[in-house]
Amino acid sequence: MKKIYFISTLFVAMILIGAVGSTEGAASERIEINIPDILGYKTLKCDFHLHTVFSDGNVWPGVRVDEAWLQGLDAISITDHIEYRPHKDDIVSDHNRSYEIARARAEQLSLILIKGSEITRDMPPGHLNAIFLKDSNPLDVEDWRDAIRIAHEQGALVFWNHPGWDRQAPGGIAVWYDEHTHLLEQGLMMGLEVANHVSYYPEAYQWAIDKNLAVLANSDSHQPMAHDFQPDKGEFRPYTLVFAEERSAEAIRKAMLDRRTAAVFQGKIMGDSRFLEAIFKESVTLEVSSVSIKGQGGTAVQVHNASDIDFRLVAGKSDCSLQVPGEITLSDGKTAVMGVRGTSDTMSGRKTVPISYGVETLLVGPGESLPVTLELEVEFIPLEQQ
Amino acid sequence: MKKIYFISTLFVAMILIGAVGSTEGAASERIEINIPDILGYKTLKCDFHLHTVFSDGNVWPGVRVDEAWLQGLDAISITDHIEYRPHKDDIVSDHNRSYEIARARAEQLSLILIKGSEITRDMPPGHLNAIFLKDSNPLDVEDWRDAIRIAHEQGALVFWNHPGWDRQAPGGIAVWYDEHTHLLEQGLMMGLEVANHVSYYPEAYQWAIDKNLAVLANSDSHQPMAHDFQPDKGEFRPYTLVFAEERSAEAIRKAMLDRRTAAVFQGKIMGDSRFLEAIFKESVTLEVSSVSIKGQGGTAVQVHNASDIDFRLVAGKSDCSLQVPGEITLSDGKTAVMGVRGTSDTMSGRKTVPISYGVETLLVGPGESLPVTLELEVEFIPLEQQ
Amino acid sequence: MKKIYFISTLFVAMILIGAVGSTEGAASERIEINIPDILGYKTLKCDFHLHTVFSDGNVWPGVRVDEAWLQGLDAISITDHIEYRPHKDDIVSDHNRSYEIARARAEQLSLILIKGSEITRDMPPGHLNAIFLKDSNPLDVEDWRDAIRIAHEQGALVFWNHPGWDRQAPGGIAVWYDEHTHLLEQGLMMGLEVANHVSYYPEAYQWAIDKNLAVLANSDSHQPMAHDFQPDKGEFRPYTLVFAEERSAEAIRKAMLDRRTAAVFQGKIMGDSRFLEAIFKESVTLEVSSVSIKGQGGTAVQVHNASDIDFRLVAGKSDCSLQVPGEITLSDGKTAVMGVRGTSDTMSGRKTVPISYGVETLLVGPGESLPVTLELEVEFIPLEQQ
Amino acid sequence: MKKIYFISTLFVAMILIGAVGSTEGAASERIEINIPDILGYKTLKCDFHLHTVFSDGNVWPGVRVDEAWLQGLDAISITDHIEYRPHKDDIVSDHNRSYEIARARAEQLSLILIKGSEITRDMPPGHLNAIFLKDSNPLDVEDWRDAIRIAHEQGALVFWNHPGWDRQAPGGIAVWYDEHTHLLEQGLMMGLEVANHVSYYPEAYQWAIDKNLAVLANSDSHQPMAHDFQPDKGEFRPYTLVFAEERSAEAIRKAMLDRRTAAVFQGKIMGDSRFLEAIFKESVTLEVSSVSIKGQGGTAVQVHNASDIDFRLVAGKSDCSLQVPGEITLSDGKTAVMGVRGTSDTMSGRKTVPISYGVETLLVGPGESLPVTLELEVEFIPLEQQ
Repeated sequence: MKKIYFISTLFVAMILIGAVGSTEGAASERIEINIPDILGYKTLKCDFHLHTVFSDGNVWPGVRVDEAWLQGLDAISITDHIEYRPHKDDIVSDHNRSYEIARARAEQLSLILIKGSEITRDMPPGHLNAIFLKDSNPLDVEDWRDAIRIAHEQGALVFWNHPGWDRQAPGGIAVWYDEHTHLLEQGLMMGLEVANHVSYYPEAYQWAIDKNLAVLANSDSHQPMAHDFQPDKGEFRPYTLVFAEERSAEAIRKAMLDRRTAAVFQGKIMGDSRFLEAIFKESVTLEVSSVSIKGQGGTAVQVHNASDIDFRLVAGKSDCSLQVPGEITLSDGKTAVMGVRGTSDTMSGRKTVPISYGVETLLVGPGESLPVTLELEVEFIPLEQQ
Repeated sequence: MKKIYFISTLFVAMILIGAVGSTEGAASERIEINIPDILGYKTLKCDFHLHTVFSDGNVWPGVRVDEAWLQGLDAISITDHIEYRPHKDDIVSDHNRSYEIARARAEQLSLILIKGSEITRDMPPGHLNAIFLKDSNPLDVEDWRDAIRIAHEQGALVFWNHPGWDRQAPGGIAVWYDEHTHLLEQGLMMGLEVANHVSYYPEAYQWAIDKNLAVLANSDSHQPMAHDFQPDKGEFRPYTLVFAEERSAEAIRKAMLDRRTAAVFQGKIMGDSRFLEAIFKESVTLEVSSVSIKGQGGTAVQVHNASDIDFRLVAGKSDCSLQVPGEITLSDGKTAVMGVRGTSDTMSGRKTVPISYGVETLLVGPGESLPVTLELEVEFIPLEQQ
Repeated sequence: MKKIYFISTLFVAMILIGAVGSTEGAASERIEINIPDILGYKTLKCDFHLHTVFSDGNVWPGVRVDEAWLQGLDAISITDHIEYRPHKDDIVSDHNRSYEIARARAEQLSLILIKGSEITRDMPPGHLNAIFLKDSNPLDVEDWRDAIRIAHEQGALVFWNHPGWDRQAPGGIAVWYDEHTHLLEQGLMMGLEVANHVSYYPEAYQWAIDKNLAVLANSDSHQPMAHDFQPDKGEFRPYTLVFAEERSAEAIRKAMLDRRTAAVFQGKIMGDSRFLEAIFKESVTLEVSSVSIKGQGGTAVQVHNASDIDFRLVAGKSDCSLQVPGEITLSDGKTAVMGVRGTSDTMSGRKTVPISYGVETLLVGPGESLPVTLELEVEFIPLEQQ
Repeated sequence: MKKIYFISTLFVAMILIGAVGSTEGAASERIEINIPDILGYKTLKCDFHLHTVFSDGNVWPGVRVDEAWLQGLDAISITDHIEYRPHKDDIVSDHNRSYEIARARAEQLSLILIKGSEITRDMPPGHLNAIFLKDSNPLDVEDWRDAIRIAHEQGALVFWNHPGWDRQAPGGIAVWYDEHTHLLEQGLMMGLEVANHVSYYPEAYQWAIDKNLAVLANSDSHQPMAHDFQPDKGEFRPYTLVFAEERSAEAIRKAMLDRRTAAVFQGKIMGDSRFLEAIFKESVTLEVSSVSIKGQGGTAVQVHNASDIDFRLVAGKSDCSLQVPGEITLSDGKTAVMGVRGTSDTMSGRKTVPISYGVETLLVGPGESLPVTLELEVEFIPLEQQ
């Protein structure tokens, strides 16, 4: 009887039937996050912890794909809770369903969708995500050890979620239990979240360094992303950088096993110095590398930042031959001026001056800035020569 | 076995357990839309057309409440389709369920939630919303006439959705059918949408005027609101102003029956001139109403707009004794300067000069600006007197 | 020979000949700063320290008037240096000239323009502004004591500029000299800047409290204001609130003599608690003042902030009968939700619960938040009664 | 007596003594305008029409350099009026002075500063700019023919300013006089402004095409730039693109003589199709160039725009084998989706489908969009093959 020709949503309609452009302002544009590829790897942006109405989230699975595409991500995993499904009287499907629904949308938008689930237990061991699953249903078992073993047998990677979550870590300080040692030693846990939603866990970051675990940052969003993070106010979801050989699910898996990750949280990046240093070097350039200082003069050196990262630099111990700013902010895509001042009373001739800064934005350990050196070739010209 | 103490979402948690403030940036602030109360009525902001996962939308019902509260609305109706439920294999509940889920959240935030459903049929009569329903389930019947009759018997108000929707109105031009005449004459249809989502239907607006139907503008959103409309880009969902005796569901119902509504769409307001004129008068004031013009001189008159509406004024036929700007924009909450210039060659003494503008922002009919007059008392001072 | 009909600038032209509106986007709108009038006084926003090309600034005097009008100020003083005029080979006019040029523009825009000059000396006594001058030229004398005496004899008010300026206060810590004691005791110095441009001097703020000096915050801008402070990035020039009997120069003078001022700097306000408390009370309201707590339940209380100030609240020692957020931000013009949670295990019946916060935004002394109490009437309902 | 150690402005101080970074938020960052280099040329962004206090402007010359650097320009010319100097009682210097003052600042920031003056006469010939002057003073002569001849003998380039300025062209429509023919034929006028400040002159654009004149767009700002154009509201000054062999004043001069320019005004670019087509091709790429259509299906093609230009595309006559969006907006730096839909009922096999659009943003003549073709390789797969 009822002939209904319209398809499920206006947004899908817009894309499929070619109406893009007629709906002014609809959120149909993907921003691109400019973080450079490094060391021969692709720098992929990933969020491996997301919820939908199929557990305790408030959005349909396709929304997670749309949000990720719009925000410039390369890969996501929807990780609905196995054990916690408050909507189950209304929503009756199994643990694989949210992935299945999202998959078509992901293919359409060339977003990498990785099958995942959240194993949701009391502490210890707390909540753990299993991603790269083949089938989520077998994880719904009594003993968490069985669930992790089953995930592992499917080839999944398992990581510890929000170790310092204050409902499981009183005072918000993470505690490492024997159970985690067990998982680590058995090769059943390959990483942990150093940041989740609006929280950061420095103690977990230290563990990752000490125990060679992959560092991750994920949004863990339950609401529409725009309720949790508002880009127009400078907020962005936490996400994980994966340095992968190519843009594919398999390359992400391989990179994670090889610990090629970094965690992006509230404008800072945490990870191994070889990755962070490479990001800085690929992003920041001196417009001129050679200047001259006349008498007790100064000059302005322009510094360009090609990335979307705002780098905050604080001066370290410097060569005493040049006076440089104590702090510099190199904003995304912009060019800053760095005033330098010297004296040719005691100096003369051409000299390469190393200028040392710590990059507060790039944390190679908890509270530990990446040290960088900008090299400036300076010709000191005594006044009498002018 | 599983002891899980956390509640459904972080956002709810934040409010209920008092964590507001610890989650920097979470979308937990309500903007207020400054449109003045007029003529002894409260000016309520309402969206009577919204979808959730319980029909073909992509969000959980509580999200519609949160979005409305955050955006400064007073009342909403969730109007899931009766006849179109593409998620029904996953979601098995009845037609009342989305309202029931949203109700607790609405009470918590003091948002008025009105029970509604969308009767979703081929044209004619097309799609119609019934709001102020008591029970949505009986509307699920074969004949649309029965559905509307049942709604009416429950005391519901029925209005015609998106009359010019291009899937039901080829070329996007609405057609009025005998079926609509029938509904109108039987008192079964009390209003229509003159704007829906990103579309405006001037022909429907004319029908509303001619046939004394309430004008409505609604979002009809299926996606998270932030995917459809982005306030930081100056976009806002369409919504309906209801001029009600108090802030209550019952007062809204009474006002709609009495046609006390206006439609807000893409920065413009459509409605009866007595409402629009009152809004303008309550919003706009001249900082000084008395100026002097010396010789062939000019002066600057400051005009303040206390509302959140951007008024665009275009000069009408003016009294010839003053030269005024051809166009003025009075932005939200700001003060503009209006340069005026005159000559005391032919004028002298004190005179009240009417300055006539058409307000393009306030449409009293399709393409018809509200005429307004600003009165300025001017003293013309011949040069020899200075 | 040359007939040139155009007037000096497009901006002036726009206003005078009524072209406002035809130049889309020209900066011709005044924002209004919503800070409430208090205690029967008008709350005027003032910047008493500004430079132009007539000393070492980079803008024509009229620009200072335009900027102040556009940014919602009520009064300014242009205070070009008496002793430092690096452009004097190009610009040959006397010390009164910048005031004279700006005056016509100020009258046109109803901005209060106060005649001032900066007495610019080595420390001690450093730089001092004299405002409410009648004639700036006599201040150009050898001995600074004479300059201040002459200003005083003209009825001017003299205040100490940027006491902690690092070129005159090594390390940026202000030093109080005998010369300042002398000025204070002779009634020749009535106030000091606790903030200037991008600097804040807590030690100066303490002196103001201890010695009953008016607190001031001023921009000291030399560049176009938009180069120093960018409102779209949340920056705003420092300014001084004056609580005056009316909006006039004379009322400002009287208020300053009576120490009715507060200093606004980077989102914080410094001043006497009677003023700051009144501002808070006029700005912030609980949408409901009466709630009920069922069992061990919670509820959401909405808090509205009608002002343009972002208030940051941090919980003080609280009555133990309610659990409230540790921190709340009440943003400008918005409504926040405050989650409260209680228990009726030990409580029952109706009780007025005081909720104590410190307002970090309102500093009644260096580092000292204004204490405020929100009173909530709570009905505790034991579970068995429900 | 007076030892005053501070230098002229905080902004200069900030740069020279290395304090950048300590003044949070000071406007010390240069944005970069991403418009690609094309055809082997550097794409330089230039504003050849600016005023200072040395004629009827309201800023000191160094401000023009700072503004241009901050906004990402490569070159400017300060073109104070020769004949109109309303500040001359206060400012006594000659016509070369504003250039001399600005020069030091320009060198410091590596901005190209070109010496210029505005010859300011009644119509005809109206106002003309002479740039690449050696000495401005000799232009101050009675007869405008002499002024232009003297400029030409210095090697300067002369162009016609704001031909449609309503004070010299009643109704805002430019008129071409014999005097302009004379200048053109004598090789004394090489270009004209097709846009100036907030005005656009289509008739002048047509003359430029017909008579082989260089097209220019300039700001003609008299106020601080932030009063005229507010980037945070999407406004930007008009500017001229010069396609030069290198980033130098001489290369700009050579390019202008060779008519290698385009005019940027309110988001649109006007110029020769070979330049505009190259800009589009260097900016826009299809993420995939090969898709498949199954049955009567659709797919989503992603289109990336690497430039800072917002391209607006409107469909032209299309190959009938694919249905594509009627309009697409490719925003700056973002990726859009273009839905395409086809049918394999009548098509089969692999085919290269040209998709034709007109780019409304790129005007190759008044009202004339640049035509572009996107080529998509499509494999049509009949349903029975799936």
